[in-house]
Amino acid sequence: MSGHWESPGFSRREAVKEDVVSLDCYLDNAATTPVAPEVARAMLEAMGVASEHRLIGSFANPSAAYRWGVQASRCVDAARGVVATTLGGQADEVVFTSGGTEANNLAILGLASALRRRGRHLITTEVEHRSVLDACHALEEEGWEVTRLPVDDAGQVQASQVQRALRPDTVLCTLAHVNNEVGTIQPIAEIAQALGTRGPILHVDGVQACGKMPTPYALWGVGLASLSAHKINGPKGVGALWIRAGVRVRPLFHGGGQQGGLRPGTENVPGIVGFRRALELATADATETTRRLREHKLRLWRRLREALPGLAANGPDPEDPVRAAPHILNVCFERCLSGVVRAEVLLHRMEEHGLACSAGSACSARRPAPSHVLVALRLGQGCIGSSLRFSVGLQTATAEIDRAVDIIRTVVSEHAEVAARWSR
Amino acid sequence: MSGHWESPGFSRREAVKEDVVSLDCYLDNAATTPVAPEVARAMLEAMGVASEHRLIGSFANPSAAYRWGVQASRCVDAARGVVATTLGGQADEVVFTSGGTEANNLAILGLASALRRRGRHLITTEVEHRSVLDACHALEEEGWEVTRLPVDDAGQVQASQVQRALRPDTVLCTLAHVNNEVGTIQPIAEIAQALGTRGPILHVDGVQACGKMPTPYALWGVGLASLSAHKINGPKGVGALWIRAGVRVRPLFHGGGQQGGLRPGTENVPGIVGFRRALELATADATETTRRLREHKLRLWRRLREALPGLAANGPDPEDPVRAAPHILNVCFERCLSGVVRAEVLLHRMEEHGLACSAGSACSARRPAPSHVLVALRLGQGCIGSSLRFSVGLQTATAEIDRAVDIIRTVVSEHAEVAARWSR
Repeated sequence: MSGHWESPGFSRREAVKEDVVSLDCYLDNAATTPVAPEVARAMLEAMGVASEHRLIGSFANPSAAYRWGVQASRCVDAARGVVATTLGGQADEVVFTSGGTEANNLAILGLASALRRRGRHLITTEVEHRSVLDACHALEEEGWEVTRLPVDDAGQVQASQVQRALRPDTVLCTLAHVNNEVGTIQPIAEIAQALGTRGPILHVDGVQACGKMPTPYALWGVGLASLSAHKINGPKGVGALWIRAGVRVRPLFHGGGQQGGLRPGTENVPGIVGFRRALELATADATETTRRLREHKLRLWRRLREALPGLAANGPDPEDPVRAAPHILNVCFERCLSGVVRAEVLLHRMEEHGLACSAGSACSARRPAPSHVLVALRLGQGCIGSSLRFSVGLQTATAEIDRAVDIIRTVVSEHAEVAARWSR
Repeated sequence: MSGHWESPGFSRREAVKEDVVSLDCYLDNAATTPVAPEVARAMLEAMGVASEHRLIGSFANPSAAYRWGVQASRCVDAARGVVATTLGGQADEVVFTSGGTEANNLAILGLASALRRRGRHLITTEVEHRSVLDACHALEEEGWEVTRLPVDDAGQVQASQVQRALRPDTVLCTLAHVNNEVGTIQPIAEIAQALGTRGPILHVDGVQACGKMPTPYALWGVGLASLSAHKINGPKGVGALWIRAGVRVRPLFHGGGQQGGLRPGTENVPGIVGFRRALELATADATETTRRLREHKLRLWRRLREALPGLAANGPDPEDPVRAAPHILNVCFERCLSGVVRAEVLLHRMEEHGLACSAGSACSARRPAPSHVLVALRLGQGCIGSSLRFSVGLQTATAEIDRAVDIIRTVVSEHAEVAARWSR
């Protein structure tokens, strides 16, 4: 699985220019990931810059009438096929976007626009990604009604809750398969079944799930699914929306008619080719991918818990394979510290040791407000303020986990000592 | 200027796999361009895949709180500065998008949404890019009124026409600086002056102009300007909208609050870094860039006219430096052929010789309808049907132009002969 990551000379231990502190342990893969070398190579070819600096035809505009345009267009079609296969759908049901945020908006605003005469009620949860929350909020401002389902202590909603929230004017239910902050897996198959084939459309934000665990959305009866490349060692600036045949969506913007008019603009062929390659790398042996991610996450969790008595996991039990995503671990340091130490302080101290992790989601990392996800889990203020997210990726090495445990233990001990001294 | 293109081993004459016909002469640079090697190198670094396969920090999520996130965020800010400088504006006035189409839509739909209470009339021309035409059409469907100004035989509108079309409820005037099909330069400075500082906002689609000729939009009094990276040897999937301070625009979609909420979603850092590098390459010696492009275009035009009596240029006189863009040449073969030969037939025959050019814009290359731009120029059906666009780029070599002339002459002669035989 990881063979292609270990090309000769590949070393994550070297510092580069300006960056005085080298990035030794990257445990923020839920925020973004480095691009896999194989993905980068595929992208270079599609840019017209092959490794030998030849000008090749696949850089052409996919809409161009000549063979090189057709060649570029075939690259896009082939990538559609790979995306569709990951979801159990058809190639012509895939629309490429500039990322997960645009895909979520195209799904929610696009479907709302298409179905506004049928009803103006939608269902979501309290723990969604900002792009879903904000798209729903924008609809509220246009007169839509939004039901935000609460979650249990593990961060889950149940199909029965969705069923109870259904109204005759409900046209959409939108939620993430895997929560980006605490890694809770939602029971998508059950929810799809509860909605039935004639009920409202189910949109799944699959950004944190895709390429990390099975995502047979088409087989489960999902109607729309958003994906993103940069969470799975693919390029930033590329995502996809899968739209089940027959589901109507209106475009967010207008232009040259590319992608059936649903998402106009010259296709980002190198990005799309990179997305395809990243998906292939992640799913070539999908079971092994999940196993590896989970192994690394559990190694981190078990060693940390051993090193730091009082450490607690937020959201699902990390050992639970059904409810906990394989790659995300959110922990609370409150009871490891005999005093209040803010997560940001720990984060910056860990950063000085070369470890990257996050407090909340990256999108809101620089905002002062407490995480809406941790609030929805009914955690105390003290816990929310001293929680950090660690997320592993396909390129994560075992040594990286062990080094991270050392750093985290050192940093927490420092602060525990200082805190203890003050409370004496 | 072109030094970086001629790295050792760089040859455009080699065929690559599947692609049996090698792309010898790429004269469709108005559709898209190959990525410059230096641009690709800059992008690789920002992907976390440096040439020695090191993991470096600038691949991090620009919203992340740690130093590597800040580093990525600084890359984006620095690129904003370079874009702003190109237009004479300020860095914080630049919003990165997924390309020119999204930028045009954000400008037109975003401004319309922000100003809809002030008025619902906008002015554009008959020769705009599909993304502008379609965005205007979408507004018409919402009850807006759109005035589409006609153009003269060269494809130009005059400032006086814009002035006459003004109404008390006009909130926006939108047009391209350089027409993408025939290369007409619009008198943007005069139009901006005619609109005045308190009049409607002027939006300029600068996609075909930027990096090829002076684009001091901020100094001219323009309010909004769209740019695209892949037209200037930058990556596909990246563009920008410059929004003069004080001009209100509402976002097309919602999310994590990136880019001041105007364009949410994780920033495409490698793409943005590539865009910056491409702009720098094109504008390092801007006068020389324009001169080189113009020299190649004029070499093509003069040699073709010599070789093919009866050849006519569509749009502005290619020799006119004020009205004709330096890189686009649109010619009509009607009078070189004693019979009707469709442009598509010529195009595909040229393609077999390794020459890429286009009939109309790439976006509509596979559509049967005649070009709306050539129709607006009042050209006859026969001329429209036998016109082709040739466009040069920064990487275009003199030898490529000469080879193209040979191919075009050969193909046209073949067809002239066949046509003559039939008309005997």
